[in-house]
Amino acid sequence: MTGWVKVAGLGPGDAAMVTDQVRAALDAATDVVGYIPYVARVTERPGLTLHPSDNRVELDRANHALDMAAAGRRVVVVSSGDPGVFAMAAALFEALEDRPAPEAFDIEILPGITAMLAAAARLGAPLGHDFCAINLSDNLKPWALIEKRLRLAAQGGFAMAFYNPRAASRPGRFEEVLKILRQELADDVLISFARAVTTPEERLLTVRLDEATADMADMRTMVIVGNADTRQVGRWIYSPRRAE
Amino acid sequence: MTGWVKVAGLGPGDAAMVTDQVRAALDAATDVVGYIPYVARVTERPGLTLHPSDNRVELDRANHALDMAAAGRRVVVVSSGDPGVFAMAAALFEALEDRPAPEAFDIEILPGITAMLAAAARLGAPLGHDFCAINLSDNLKPWALIEKRLRLAAQGGFAMAFYNPRAASRPGRFEEVLKILRQELADDVLISFARAVTTPEERLLTVRLDEATADMADMRTMVIVGNADTRQVGRWIYSPRRAE
Repeated sequence: MTGWVKVAGLGPGDAAMVTDQVRAALDAATDVVGYIPYVARVTERPGLTLHPSDNRVELDRANHALDMAAAGRRVVVVSSGDPGVFAMAAALFEALEDRPAPEAFDIEILPGITAMLAAAARLGAPLGHDFCAINLSDNLKPWALIEKRLRLAAQGGFAMAFYNPRAASRPGRFEEVLKILRQELADDVLISFARAVTTPEERLLTVRLDEATADMADMRTMVIVGNADTRQVGRWIYSPRRAE
Repeated sequence: MTGWVKVAGLGPGDAAMVTDQVRAALDAATDVVGYIPYVARVTERPGLTLHPSDNRVELDRANHALDMAAAGRRVVVVSSGDPGVFAMAAALFEALEDRPAPEAFDIEILPGITAMLAAAARLGAPLGHDFCAINLSDNLKPWALIEKRLRLAAQGGFAMAFYNPRAASRPGRFEEVLKILRQELADDVLISFARAVTTPEERLLTVRLDEATADMADMRTMVIVGNADTRQVGRWIYSPRRAE
């Protein structure tokens, strides 16, 4: 097989946060597949075919990429942020599992700046101590598992980064998340809402947990919950390295 | 104040994983401070003073950077990986807390590709489902807290990424980590040891938890523990997006 698939992270939005490695892959590609708004971030050029697709068709997209690679094409699957964090890399390997000869494929995962770390950098250093990353979407896992993880993470004193805070199947789920957190954590724990970080639409908001409301998050928002020691210094939020 | 401090992530080692944003900061700097091996990754040029320092002097280094910024210098504090993950960003804000006018400082945190995501990309997508990042060093937190977090993360079905697996104050601690994990998780859970990823010394090893030994990790190793569904496809390790 002379074709290949590279699953590449485009970072949070700012072109200055794309790595050379990812740019080189895009320069060498014949085809780019991905979710419509992410493919829109790739510069068009002769010899490059863009294949934008809708949300929630991750497996179709992965199979399309594998089929094109098997036909000799050089394919970049683009994700926002990092492809390994709630993005296309896992979907590609799920598709690969159904192929008779997975070893025949030339695959590479190219990391990017994931949303939680871009958000953390804009806020300060809220993830400077032990933390968990949780996808709040209940499309692919039961709500009870999300609730269990929220409670255990809170009991462990982990800071938490939430992806897809408003993607749950029912509106009102994020309100439940806040309720669970309030049962497990002190009222004055800091919670940050970082929307569309590094883009012109960026908006940062940090409040106490007892002041947080569900409408502070939308689909473009990363939510970061501090631990008991997370604090403000000037306009910054950070979690000290030390803990008792 | 005309000086500034930017805390920048150099990524895991490969120069192709440094962002343009970080390179631009280094080009504009008058001074670079950081741990000796990280400063060694910065290209020397006229007008740039390098200030390498030893390990475990993070607060001194942060104060040095703030003092130089107050004197009008343009200072980049370099971290390996991402500065917000068990690195210099939190230390800088700790130092900033002791300053009478923290708002007077011009500070920016520039994210990088953190070690766990570089390691995950080389392995496949082991962090493609909910996960925790835990610093196993007990320099700044009690061992009992690390043990508690390991148990809760395991009980929550989180994948786990361990930084500093061999940094604990006593040799033998990582052996204890493996023992705790074996008490909480099934024998066939996959554990990956990713050493010096993206450098010429890179070495990847994945075994079952009951086959893991402490000598598989050293100070340059990221350890990634899968969840109950983490599996192999070809030479890749990945965690499916779906969970029950």
